[in-house]
Amino acid sequence: MNVVKTIAELKAFVNEVKAQGKTIGLVPTMGFLHDGHLTLANTARQENDFVIMSIFVNPTQFGPNEDFESYPRDLERDVKLAETVSVDVIFAPTVEEMYPTDGGIRICAGRQSEILCGASRPGHFDGVLQVVSKLFHLAEPTRAYFGQKDAQQVAIIQTMVRDYNFPLEICTVPIVREVDGLAKSSRNVYLTEEERIEAPAIYEALQIAKEEFLASQDVERAVRLAIKHIENKTSGKIDYLQLLSYPDLKVVTEETTQFLLATAVYIGKTRLIDNLIFNIKG
Amino acid sequence: MNVVKTIAELKAFVNEVKAQGKTIGLVPTMGFLHDGHLTLANTARQENDFVIMSIFVNPTQFGPNEDFESYPRDLERDVKLAETVSVDVIFAPTVEEMYPTDGGIRICAGRQSEILCGASRPGHFDGVLQVVSKLFHLAEPTRAYFGQKDAQQVAIIQTMVRDYNFPLEICTVPIVREVDGLAKSSRNVYLTEEERIEAPAIYEALQIAKEEFLASQDVERAVRLAIKHIENKTSGKIDYLQLLSYPDLKVVTEETTQFLLATAVYIGKTRLIDNLIFNIKG
Repeated sequence: MNVVKTIAELKAFVNEVKAQGKTIGLVPTMGFLHDGHLTLANTARQENDFVIMSIFVNPTQFGPNEDFESYPRDLERDVKLAETVSVDVIFAPTVEEMYPTDGGIRICAGRQSEILCGASRPGHFDGVLQVVSKLFHLAEPTRAYFGQKDAQQVAIIQTMVRDYNFPLEICTVPIVREVDGLAKSSRNVYLTEEERIEAPAIYEALQIAKEEFLASQDVERAVRLAIKHIENKTSGKIDYLQLLSYPDLKVVTEETTQFLLATAVYIGKTRLIDNLIFNIKG
Repeated sequence: MNVVKTIAELKAFVNEVKAQGKTIGLVPTMGFLHDGHLTLANTARQENDFVIMSIFVNPTQFGPNEDFESYPRDLERDVKLAETVSVDVIFAPTVEEMYPTDGGIRICAGRQSEILCGASRPGHFDGVLQVVSKLFHLAEPTRAYFGQKDAQQVAIIQTMVRDYNFPLEICTVPIVREVDGLAKSSRNVYLTEEERIEAPAIYEALQIAKEEFLASQDVERAVRLAIKHIENKTSGKIDYLQLLSYPDLKVVTEETTQFLLATAVYIGKTRLIDNLIFNIKG
């Protein structure tokens, strides 16, 4: 496995692979890898000739009061983990390597970014699209892999790829969970022991809401039950808990067949997200 | 030469060329070809294995009161002209083929788009970047060719390609002029006989300003002389006439070494643009 830090080295690898007519699977990450990332890489490994994993904590998707500085980083550890799933190249650039110039052009994520995480993180998805489009142009992947845990992110990236004709396929991988149901996340390391014990109530709440909705088709009641469960079982503060159509992220109507039940909860200072995607048959 | 109207047909051609490891030169146009476009195609022909010319009057770069509906179109004529310069594929999609869906994501051109043509055409360059990025993803060119007549457009596209790491090279070709100096433009057909006789004064004015600036280094005086010449020699209304640094399009300072002298003038109802790019040695 090769760890490259410059765009020039990455492009040399990509151009060589392209000249051979081989396929590339790209796994964009912010590092501090967990089983979710490794599942993405494993899937990419099975479906492509070569796998590139990017490890880059992208400053443009963090707000001024968010955890860009404190976001956990451990490249040495990540390199060892990536090796276990046979990643070919890790691309781990510096901020200066990724953003040496700024002519002021921005990708504005629009309607789909104004709700859920986007409502409390203004500009977040603009930054995501900025770095993702750069990575797509740099790695020229045949397929790019994203975790379903960031369901809104996946939906917005899929919209960009579709509406802007990026020559690649977006592949998603289901959420990987701890034994007690907590969604795996690099941010779980922020949790205190007590907070970690409370945190699985988030997933429990989503399951309660899903069952209620499938039984009653009552969006408000389903959401209310889930909120009550989180309020009863945790000391957390709910940022949002919503049931929307998926992947267009609109209000549920009688025509909706696929659903996103998504939540973000502050457990102490840690913002955790989780979701379920399901269709009307459950 | 092949004329294709669907993305599927274009992609089939592109994928075949890519599989052979050959290069593609892309010439994006809005059709109604003139010698400027043919010079672009000729240059692309010399520098690439295959040449794709797109012919698409892009609605998203026209304002509500602009000439989208009346913009001259003649595909049959364009096909014959493109054949004379050995274009391999003409991509002439419908609006529906290019924009079948709209998830609301936009490319915001930013600072460089707020001046010159951008000031009187709000959203114009956002629309240009939208269609150009789509065409880049569809045609996957090694090189893309743009006329220097749209100097601000070229500067903004170059910024996008640089800051978003598009894997291609932007090539520019000098302005092609009529015998009397008028810059070739598809919009010249709008001019009445009288207006056509006045129009070369635009280029004369730019030359006067350039000479004055090289002699005196006095931006204001140079611009004033040019404006006076257009006001004296035409019935036109000046939209802007400015001397800026190039390619960053900022106010000229003592450090500036390359200059853009650009103007837009309404001759009757027709908006004509022209420019000179020069360095301090002329």
